[in-house]
Amino acid sequence: MKSNTISLEHGAGGEVMQALIGEIILKNFHNKSAGSIGLECLDDGSTVRLDSFNNGCELVLTTDSHVITPAFFPNTNIGRLAVAGTVNDLTVMGAKPLALTCAVIVPEGFPLKEFEEIIKTMDKTAAEVGVPIITGDTKTVEKTALDSIILNTAGLGITDSPVRDSGLRPGDKILVTGTIGDHGISLMAHREGFDFDTDLASDSAPLWKLIEPLLKLRTPEGEPVITAMKDPTRGGLANALNEMAAKSGAGILIEEDWIPFKPAVSAACEMLGLDPLEVANEGKAVIGVKPGFEEEVLSILRQHPYGRDAAVIGEVTPDKKEVVLRNRFGGMRFVDVPAGDPIPRVC
Amino acid sequence: MKSNTISLEHGAGGEVMQALIGEIILKNFHNKSAGSIGLECLDDGSTVRLDSFNNGCELVLTTDSHVITPAFFPNTNIGRLAVAGTVNDLTVMGAKPLALTCAVIVPEGFPLKEFEEIIKTMDKTAAEVGVPIITGDTKTVEKTALDSIILNTAGLGITDSPVRDSGLRPGDKILVTGTIGDHGISLMAHREGFDFDTDLASDSAPLWKLIEPLLKLRTPEGEPVITAMKDPTRGGLANALNEMAAKSGAGILIEEDWIPFKPAVSAACEMLGLDPLEVANEGKAVIGVKPGFEEEVLSILRQHPYGRDAAVIGEVTPDKKEVVLRNRFGGMRFVDVPAGDPIPRVC
Repeated sequence: MKSNTISLEHGAGGEVMQALIGEIILKNFHNKSAGSIGLECLDDGSTVRLDSFNNGCELVLTTDSHVITPAFFPNTNIGRLAVAGTVNDLTVMGAKPLALTCAVIVPEGFPLKEFEEIIKTMDKTAAEVGVPIITGDTKTVEKTALDSIILNTAGLGITDSPVRDSGLRPGDKILVTGTIGDHGISLMAHREGFDFDTDLASDSAPLWKLIEPLLKLRTPEGEPVITAMKDPTRGGLANALNEMAAKSGAGILIEEDWIPFKPAVSAACEMLGLDPLEVANEGKAVIGVKPGFEEEVLSILRQHPYGRDAAVIGEVTPDKKEVVLRNRFGGMRFVDVPAGDPIPRVC
Repeated sequence: MKSNTISLEHGAGGEVMQALIGEIILKNFHNKSAGSIGLECLDDGSTVRLDSFNNGCELVLTTDSHVITPAFFPNTNIGRLAVAGTVNDLTVMGAKPLALTCAVIVPEGFPLKEFEEIIKTMDKTAAEVGVPIITGDTKTVEKTALDSIILNTAGLGITDSPVRDSGLRPGDKILVTGTIGDHGISLMAHREGFDFDTDLASDSAPLWKLIEPLLKLRTPEGEPVITAMKDPTRGGLANALNEMAAKSGAGILIEEDWIPFKPAVSAACEMLGLDPLEVANEGKAVIGVKPGFEEEVLSILRQHPYGRDAAVIGEVTPDKKEVVLRNRFGGMRFVDVPAGDPIPRVC
């Protein structure tokens, strides 16, 4: 680690954050596993195995803080982001959400009306997937100490077959559940006062009901059709694909033309020189699917409003841990692990 | 609610916070229970009941954010506070800690060396009770947006007999596991540069091993000897006793002379006009014990280093929800619900 203080990149979801986690957190936590997936897996959550479960079930535990600013943005607010983010972390682990926590840290002077609106939004978002919010914590700090509300949510789920981000095998198809880059770009546009197209809004959404039917799919040999799953939040699709490839020990070839983008996202990225693959999404999943089952998975996804734009975007290759993007003319480029999300504090 | 913005008292553990939670959070969360103890109980955590448990077991989920400043204080730091705080919330619910989460929010410029020291302290504190830290989250924000590191921990535990804070019955003895006021007063002294006695340090400690043996105690009729439990953090002993009395529908009579105080805490409180009963503790529990069992409980507590100063401080009365303090001359005064902890940001 070059500098001796924390920089913004240390929390931006890319390779600088990976280094911090590896060199400081994983090195110093000695007891970090309570089931088949522990902290060292750096998956979207970890599992807890109980003696009382003789059916192979495991609990899944996950947590996320949200420091987005401003707390209100087109269509919704930080409350939706927090609940959806934690539901999605459980979802991409293949776990049914059982319960959420809600810890708020609020600077003095924050309007009570906005506070109540955030709480109402959390309630509504949780209701979409039927998960109760059962415990919480409220802290306040001086307005000179913190610029906006912070939410932390933890989630408890249960699964009989955890989905890891390391399960990709050559030949698997790579799917996304919808358009890429909406959240980060809409936030940036809102924050900077850009006036793009009207269809540009955060995609923040809780995905459990969208993904649940996929978890039951089995091949004729009885193996799960879904081989790996991840939500492409901080560091965007580029980071999610690289993590999945590296952990699976495989390569991924993505067809640029197959990635669904909203026109406004493409236009904004071109104008501002941003790579939409590095921008955070908050209501999307990247899914590895056993070859031959992609059409079945797509048709299930497209029946749900959050999966209408689902698409196959590429496949897993035997190349070692590389993510390659092929454009329509056959040109190839590596998709690198980004240093972090190019737009700070969007989640 | 009089003002229309958040004030520091909204997060200070007293009656202003109770109003915020009641009028905004509980009112707007519609689905808030997954077991026998839900959010509306406002206990130290809530429970999750699973179909797979046919032995009456429940999971316990709890969460806490720590915004203490400075992050380092005599003997230890925010890392110990966070782990101990969450372990203790599980402990006073009667739940064995199974796993913790660790979410950090760090301002840019925070020294990496201090960050590592905090992580090491979390590891050491968790090791005292053998609980793994299995999942986490790292966020960074601009240094103008946040003044110091914030930690959030959530905890998952399991119990076959949850201990509620509402279980007091007239005649029960009220015990504390050690001296009162140490954490808040030591923090304030450190922060303000006062030079009190050398024995003044935070009491922050994980209490599971201290409390675990008590949970097995049964009366000859087979009832739990421990009837209620709470950790007197924000709002101090005054708040904890009032919550226990109100929820139990009973009164509590405390003998002032029986409350163990360190001399330095008494001296500081006298000098500064602070009520030590309203000051936060971070390594203590208030315990309701069935009459006749208090000596047995005391002797178990005193065998553990964290329980050496354990004492009976009073008993439960049939008076409706009142907490009364009797001094050595027989004079009585009500112990009111404090507006909040008189010393902000000590936890």
